[in-house]
Amino acid sequence: MSLIVQKFGGTSVGSIEKIEAVADKVERFRKDGHQLVIVVSAMSGETNRLIGLAQEISASPTLREMDVLVSTGEQVTTALLSMALNKRGIPAKSYNGSQVRILTDDAHTKARIREIDDQRLRGDLDAGYVLVVAGFQGVDENGNITTLGRGGSDTTAVALAAALTADECQIYTDVDGVYTTDPRMVDGARRLDSVTFEEMLEMASMGSKVLQIRAVEFAGKYKVPLRVLHSFQDGPGTLIRVEDETDMETPTIAGIAFTRDEAKLTVLGVPDTPGVAHKILGPIGAANIEVDVIVQNVSIDGSTDFTFTVHRDEMERAKGILDRIAAELNAREVIADDKIAKVSLVGVGMRSHAGVASQMFEALADVAINIQMITTSEIKISVVIDEKFLELAVRSLHSVFELEVEPTGVVVD
Amino acid sequence: MSLIVQKFGGTSVGSIEKIEAVADKVERFRKDGHQLVIVVSAMSGETNRLIGLAQEISASPTLREMDVLVSTGEQVTTALLSMALNKRGIPAKSYNGSQVRILTDDAHTKARIREIDDQRLRGDLDAGYVLVVAGFQGVDENGNITTLGRGGSDTTAVALAAALTADECQIYTDVDGVYTTDPRMVDGARRLDSVTFEEMLEMASMGSKVLQIRAVEFAGKYKVPLRVLHSFQDGPGTLIRVEDETDMETPTIAGIAFTRDEAKLTVLGVPDTPGVAHKILGPIGAANIEVDVIVQNVSIDGSTDFTFTVHRDEMERAKGILDRIAAELNAREVIADDKIAKVSLVGVGMRSHAGVASQMFEALADVAINIQMITTSEIKISVVIDEKFLELAVRSLHSVFELEVEPTGVVVD
Repeated sequence: MSLIVQKFGGTSVGSIEKIEAVADKVERFRKDGHQLVIVVSAMSGETNRLIGLAQEISASPTLREMDVLVSTGEQVTTALLSMALNKRGIPAKSYNGSQVRILTDDAHTKARIREIDDQRLRGDLDAGYVLVVAGFQGVDENGNITTLGRGGSDTTAVALAAALTADECQIYTDVDGVYTTDPRMVDGARRLDSVTFEEMLEMASMGSKVLQIRAVEFAGKYKVPLRVLHSFQDGPGTLIRVEDETDMETPTIAGIAFTRDEAKLTVLGVPDTPGVAHKILGPIGAANIEVDVIVQNVSIDGSTDFTFTVHRDEMERAKGILDRIAAELNAREVIADDKIAKVSLVGVGMRSHAGVASQMFEALADVAINIQMITTSEIKISVVIDEKFLELAVRSLHSVFELEVEPTGVVVD
Repeated sequence: MSLIVQKFGGTSVGSIEKIEAVADKVERFRKDGHQLVIVVSAMSGETNRLIGLAQEISASPTLREMDVLVSTGEQVTTALLSMALNKRGIPAKSYNGSQVRILTDDAHTKARIREIDDQRLRGDLDAGYVLVVAGFQGVDENGNITTLGRGGSDTTAVALAAALTADECQIYTDVDGVYTTDPRMVDGARRLDSVTFEEMLEMASMGSKVLQIRAVEFAGKYKVPLRVLHSFQDGPGTLIRVEDETDMETPTIAGIAFTRDEAKLTVLGVPDTPGVAHKILGPIGAANIEVDVIVQNVSIDGSTDFTFTVHRDEMERAKGILDRIAAELNAREVIADDKIAKVSLVGVGMRSHAGVASQMFEALADVAINIQMITTSEIKISVVIDEKFLELAVRSLHSVFELEVEPTGVVVD
């Protein structure tokens, strides 16, 4: 008998029919003898409906009351799923964030979990109940309702799994696992049986939006085995595992992530004096614009070019700020370009394998793709290229690194 | 500065526009310097929507989960009204039943309030907040969400007023007060400035459905001054008062209540033996059919006629049961009649005024109305008549007892 935490998102519980289907699935696990904690989101559309009501009242409604309002969405789902389980003869009980006592800080609409009281839950688990817990919500130490922000239900599931030392935390989604790259772009894209937490973090932040980053971080920190599966198709999904357990079998590259969401800004001819990077990026940060890739070329004749990327939606605003700064710094020109894409190779295996970067650059050169920017981390190499070459780049790299082939055992370099 | 508890029902908060209108009203009271606790129901339609979802899953969903489900309705309203007040610069805070701690028993969907913790509320009142409390809901001693049953928001308001020893509990509705009788039937029907709790109970149970009976009982028990007012029209409403405070001015008759909801059942020719009333009414009660007026005529030749009224919807079912009993008792016949109406004079003043009953019967005889059944209590005289004479009876009585005339002082008989 295992203790399993399962999380079903808004789409998976988006109608009574789907809630019944989830109840069927839970019933099968129950018959296999597992103890189960089910974390649910609001029915799809419900959170937006509630936010819509608030916005009819005010463009900036009180955050405390926003949490009171939207937290009702998950509570409704917990009641309905519990009823569906009860109908099947399965003892089940709903819990909201306050009833579990998922203690958070008081940062309304983006609270962080501090502590989970597992006492009541354990009592009901031991008494044979399936527990249906409202995701995404908690309560601060003064009893105020808080929410963890959108997608926080994944975090709730992982945190409950950690608190209960569950055998596995299963996140049910609309995909059947994590892929080597987007299957819509590369025919040979392959579902991974497992990835490491670090790889998953890099994949998630690069737009493979299967899991919330916070949930993955949390799972990694508390070593909760996490599995991504399809809500309504059977299959093993992808296990996100603690790295060193199966280190020997780790392939060099786990997958290829990419994004079209960024834009590139270049300040040309900046006098290369100490503190110039801060003078450029300080005001950008102050304007709450997130910066991703940053590259500064070596100085030629005492002036340099400074380039960075931001989210495409922020390009115009960033350009406005840079134009002002450029004038102050006597820089030559500011160029903005939103026709770019970022492609990343991700894999903890590349740590111990030299030559991955040059192999990547060679593969891109072979298909005549010019690299505009490069950044690297321990387990990721990213390049910025012209957007129109994105598909060509991803397909070439997927093929060169043989990602369509199932790894069969120890990888020898 | 007074402490006022105000309750707004589902229709009064049925849309964002109406919630804004309630906020405007609260703002005016606030400017007058009052401390305010606002009790709200779910937006009209919302409770039915939620019940509909549950019934898609099961015809008899788990009661514990029904409470979890429907209690979200009021929580949504508390958040929205708090936002609307905050927008007006008024510090306001929502509370659900668990947050106040409205402790109830564990009878899900029809729980009774045991205790209210007024500590947090008082703290926030003293800190200058308007408190917006979810009506209709509480929490049992194990932290399970409970609800008080439909209309329980009135009870919440009265219970909060009692716990906080509020100066007044104001129930906002879609009528501007309690009338001597239904204004749609009698042009001269007059809004009463005040009625006693006992009168209000008799009026409420007779179909003047302005307030929940439980709320009135509660208010009477804890001597909470209760006022019925119109949500969106200004006016003094009707005060429901503790009797002895203004006893001298109490008029003989407060008003005339009536109902068309009942049906009459008569068992003719029942052998008049001990226990016969129980033999007839026992099975009716066992079938959960509520009985209202009961009359048994004196025995003639060792047999009697036994008559009672039930809700019209239950007539057929009651008839079926009586046919079986009549056979067992060797009674002659069972007659069912749903073409009846009940008319009641209500007034604590009639206690000390002899002759009200005969005056009533004389008034009905003057317009040739035959009385089929009579029952009396200390403060009420009810007659059952043919339904087609209902309007004539009510108008005649309203005129004979001069209810269209505002009482001016001490009534001398």
